[in-house]
Amino acid sequence: MEDWLNTLKTETPQQGFELAIKLARMGVKYTQPDMEVLKAGREEYGGNAEFLIYASQVVAIHFQTVAKANNFWRNADND
Amino acid sequence: MEDWLNTLKTETPQQGFELAIKLARMGVKYTQPDMEVLKAGREEYGGNAEFLIYASQVVAIHFQTVAKANNFWRNADND
Amino acid sequence: MEDWLNTLKTETPQQGFELAIKLARMGVKYTQPDMEVLKAGREEYGGNAEFLIYASQVVAIHFQTVAKANNFWRNADND
Amino acid sequence: MEDWLNTLKTETPQQGFELAIKLARMGVKYTQPDMEVLKAGREEYGGNAEFLIYASQVVAIHFQTVAKANNFWRNADND
Amino acid sequence: MEDWLNTLKTETPQQGFELAIKLARMGVKYTQPDMEVLKAGREEYGGNAEFLIYASQVVAIHFQTVAKANNFWRNADND
Amino acid sequence: MEDWLNTLKTETPQQGFELAIKLARMGVKYTQPDMEVLKAGREEYGGNAEFLIYASQVVAIHFQTVAKANNFWRNADND
Repeated sequence: MEDWLNTLKTETPQQGFELAIKLARMGVKYTQPDMEVLKAGREEYGGNAEFLIYASQVVAIHFQTVAKANNFWRNADND
Repeated sequence: MEDWLNTLKTETPQQGFELAIKLARMGVKYTQPDMEVLKAGREEYGGNAEFLIYASQVVAIHFQTVAKANNFWRNADND
Repeated sequence: MEDWLNTLKTETPQQGFELAIKLARMGVKYTQPDMEVLKAGREEYGGNAEFLIYASQVVAIHFQTVAKANNFWRNADND
Repeated sequence: MEDWLNTLKTETPQQGFELAIKLARMGVKYTQPDMEVLKAGREEYGGNAEFLIYASQVVAIHFQTVAKANNFWRNADND
Repeated sequence: MEDWLNTLKTETPQQGFELAIKLARMGVKYTQPDMEVLKAGREEYGGNAEFLIYASQVVAIHFQTVAKANNFWRNADND
Repeated sequence: MEDWLNTLKTETPQQGFELAIKLARMGVKYTQPDMEVLKAGREEYGGNAEFLIYASQVVAIHFQTVAKANNFWRNADND
C-alpha cells in the first residue's frame, strides 16, 4: 500500500480528529480492500444509527491515540 | 468543515463531559454528513435502550481523552 | 442542564464506582433527554442480560477515568 | 449499598483478576438490583458464547484499572 | 480456583500475546465454569466471524495491560 | 506456534498500523486455528459493514498499544 501515515502529529485537535477518522477508515480498508464491496456495504448501512455509532466508537479510540501523540495539543491551545 | 474544535481544555468536568458528547456526535456526523439521513436514524433509534448504551460508551471513551487533557481538573476542584 | 459534575475526586473507590455509574447514566440522558422514552426503554431491557453487560461496560470505562483522577485511591487505602 | 470496595490493591495478579470480575458483576447489579430478574437473565444467557465474550470484555477493562492501581504487581513478581 | 496467574511479566511480546489470550479465556471461564456448557457454545460459535472478532477484541484489551506491565518489552527488543 | 512477534517497535506509524492489523488477525487465528473455517467465515462476512467496523475497532485498540510502545514515533516524525 502507498504511504499514507508518516506522522501522528497535527497542528490542532480538529486535525487530530480528522486523522482519527482516516485511521478508522483505513482499518476497514485493510480488512476489505475491494472498494466495490465497501461501497455496497456503506450504501446499505450509511443511514443505520447503530452502524454510525460503532464507527464513531472506532474514531473515539483512534482519537485517544492521536491526542496522546500530540500531548493533547496543550501548547497549541489558543482559547 | 468549519472550525469546531480548537482545544480540549474545559473549565469544569461537566463542560468536559459535554465536550465528550460533542465529539461523539461529530464522529457520527463525519461518517454520515447527510443531516436528513441522520435525523431519520435518530427518530428510529432514539428510544432504543441498546442504541443509547452504545452512544453512552462512545461518550465514555471521549471523556477519558478530555479528562486526561485537563489533568482530570485536579487544580480546578472546588469541592 | 443544571450543575451535576464539579469534581472527579471521591473519598473511596466505592464512591468512585458510584460516580462511574452516574456518568454512564448521564451519557444516556444527554442522548435521550425525554425521561418517559428512557423509562419505557429501561422497562423493556432491564432484565436483558446483554443490555446489562453493555451498561456494565460503560461503567467500566468511566471507572478507569475516575480511578486515574483519584490516583487509584492509593493514599486512602485502609486495608 | 453496603461497603464492598475499600481498595483496589491486591497481593497477586490473580486476586486482581478476581477483583475485576467482582467489579464487572457489581456494574450489572447496580443497573439491575433485582436479583430474581438477574438470575433469570443468567440462566437464559449463561451458555451463550456471545454473552460470555461480552462479560469477558468488561472484566478485561476492569483488569486494566486494577493492574494499574497495583503498578502491575511488579514488586510482587515471584517468577 | 487453583493458582494460574502469578505474574504479568513475559520474556517476549509473543508470550505476552499468549498470556492475553489466556486472560481472555479465564474471563469466560470465571463467568461460566461449566466446561460442558462452554464447549457446546464454542462448537456453535467457533466458526462465526462476528464471535471471533469479539474474542479478538478482548485479547486486544488484555494485551494492552500485559504490554504495559512489561514496559512494551523495550529492553528485550532484539530486532 | 512459530515465532511471529519479536518486537513492537516499528520505524513508521504506518508500519505500526500494519502491525496492529497483524495482531488483530492473530487474535482471531489463536481463537480459531482452523484456516478452512476462518476462510468460510471471512467470505460470508467480508462485505458486511458491521463486521468490518468491529474488525477496525480491534485494530484501533492494538494501534494504541503499538503507538505507545513506539513513543508515538515522536523522534521519527519527518513532517
